Amino acid sequence: MPVRIALIGTGAVGKGILKALSEKDLGIVLTGVADSRSGDIRGEGIVPSDLLKRKKETGLCGDPSLHAQDVVQNAPYDILVEVSPTDATTGEPATGYIRTALSRGCHVVTSNKGPVALHYHELKQEADNAGVSLRFEATVAGAIPILHTLGESLGGNTIKALYGVLNGTCNYILTRMAEEGLSYKQALDEARTLGYAEADPTYDVKGIDAAIKLVILANTVLNRRISLDDIDITGIDLLTEEAIRLAEEQDATIRLIGEIIPEKNLYRLSPRIIPRYHPLVVQGSLNVIIVRTDLAGDLVFSGKGAGSLETASAVLGDILSIRDRYAGGN
Amino acid sequence: MPVRIALIGTGAVGKGILKALSEKDLGIVLTGVADSRSGDIRGEGIVPSDLLKRKKETGLCGDPSLHAQDVVQNAPYDILVEVSPTDATTGEPATGYIRTALSRGCHVVTSNKGPVALHYHELKQEADNAGVSLRFEATVAGAIPILHTLGESLGGNTIKALYGVLNGTCNYILTRMAEEGLSYKQALDEARTLGYAEADPTYDVKGIDAAIKLVILANTVLNRRISLDDIDITGIDLLTEEAIRLAEEQDATIRLIGEIIPEKNLYRLSPRIIPRYHPLVVQGSLNVIIVRTDLAGDLVFSGKGAGSLETASAVLGDILSIRDRYAGGN
Repeated sequence: MPVRIALIGTGAVGKGILKALSEKDLGIVLTGVADSRSGDIRGEGIVPSDLLKRKKETGLCGDPSLHAQDVVQNAPYDILVEVSPTDATTGEPATGYIRTALSRGCHVVTSNKGPVALHYHELKQEADNAGVSLRFEATVAGAIPILHTLGESLGGNTIKALYGVLNGTCNYILTRMAEEGLSYKQALDEARTLGYAEADPTYDVKGIDAAIKLVILANTVLNRRISLDDIDITGIDLLTEEAIRLAEEQDATIRLIGEIIPEKNLYRLSPRIIPRYHPLVVQGSLNVIIVRTDLAGDLVFSGKGAGSLETASAVLGDILSIRDRYAGGN
Repeated sequence: MPVRIALIGTGAVGKGILKALSEKDLGIVLTGVADSRSGDIRGEGIVPSDLLKRKKETGLCGDPSLHAQDVVQNAPYDILVEVSPTDATTGEPATGYIRTALSRGCHVVTSNKGPVALHYHELKQEADNAGVSLRFEATVAGAIPILHTLGESLGGNTIKALYGVLNGTCNYILTRMAEEGLSYKQALDEARTLGYAEADPTYDVKGIDAAIKLVILANTVLNRRISLDDIDITGIDLLTEEAIRLAEEQDATIRLIGEIIPEKNLYRLSPRIIPRYHPLVVQGSLNVIIVRTDLAGDLVFSGKGAGSLETASAVLGDILSIRDRYAGGN
């Protein structure tokens, strides 16, 4: 039986999901959609390719009189797929949408870091009370299914430490500074030109984005209760090309590394000197995570940390996991 | 509510599971156990540390008049945990145990490659008919949860190609030949001394073990129907130190690589020359898998491919996934 979803957000992630749904039959039916200016509800299903075409031609996904909140409140769906832009300060309006869906007894999948970093434990409680799932694989490390892996596959393990490159923009800048001897400013300009960095790159280069991902990892799969204030954060914006050159002279390089050591309550994000061929040294906009466990030893996971289809992959994995779980069996 | 398991097999994997269960409370109760010469059934639960002690002192896990089949047939369990040694030719007696458990309406978790490589589709059908789970994460790549990842987390993706180092013994031998200039025979002797290789290493060095893992990957998460005969296999037993030296001179090395390209029906295991710092070049007894997907791009997973606790990690992940799934929610 197909699973019905309502999609809130038709930016890069939303478009990636619609593209995947238009290209293959995953047993997912879209019964509602909304962007920041319009919405659509159709119980019989919205055709993803038609929607992509409409959005491209008109800039709208539906009727301007229909607000996202109306879609969340009224569309007939099993899973709310919330992929609107992250507001890391308030978590809104996404948190409100998620609460509405949970209160309707619907599952929620989100790629939105705000609600998860700010309100995870309350939202999880609301989901548990409603007997539904809340999943958010896409919030950390893009295409790498790290939350699924830590929370389920490695469920028998105690996590001793976790190290990771969690921001592709910073990793791209550091890679280019090392490879080409570019200055920080030159590498940042290049990242902007290629679309890896926003016009205002503060959120990435000061380490806020990566630190939010550490908060999510800590609070969800490691069952802590921390906030951004508990993380010792140093960004890459003050890093000189001289520092990178010195590292390179010693067959090493510099990467922005997030680190969690649960038993020491250590949460840190900082540029670190790493031997050049260490598993943490990935190139360009890749992400990588090393997990140190008591039973499984060290495991390394790497892959694309961002991108439209890559993030869609994580969202779809969550949707299909919920469908399979509640269908029972296998 | 705790989940009840019966454990068949108290070799390295079984001992790893018992050790983990004796050290932490995972909500798992052991109600039956058997080795090749004895068995025990206790509805109120067997204490894992007591069992490890008894096994060490007497060589037996229970009553010599109780056979494994009696335990499988009569113990009160939710999940049969079948970790007896692999017989890659017949799949027995493990396949019989698994069928008995499924016919009782019990879930099955196994680390045994024989039944999965030889009879996956029939066993899966029997599990589906009974409305229960059949899981076998430990059969491929040890501690790396590759089956869980491909089958669930990446469920929205089409797998375009899969490349991997799937046999730690061969990888250890190749690493030592390259690092120390050892001959194949010297490196094999060293692997034997360290317990990485069996007295008869044929199964590993001729590539049979890694090829069986390719069969399992193909037939389960890639939904193919192949057997060992469909795999083009070349082992490492004829590899000379000269070949490795020549590769090293070109900043490359040799690894035994398994390869699956589903759309070409290509299944191959062979020693390949790989650039020295390529992600497929892992050291010692590690395993690594690269998955090429349509949405998520390339993902790399590496970790320990064998070991008592490492394999136990995979088995426990399966047990806990079944428990969480059938408990409903989250």
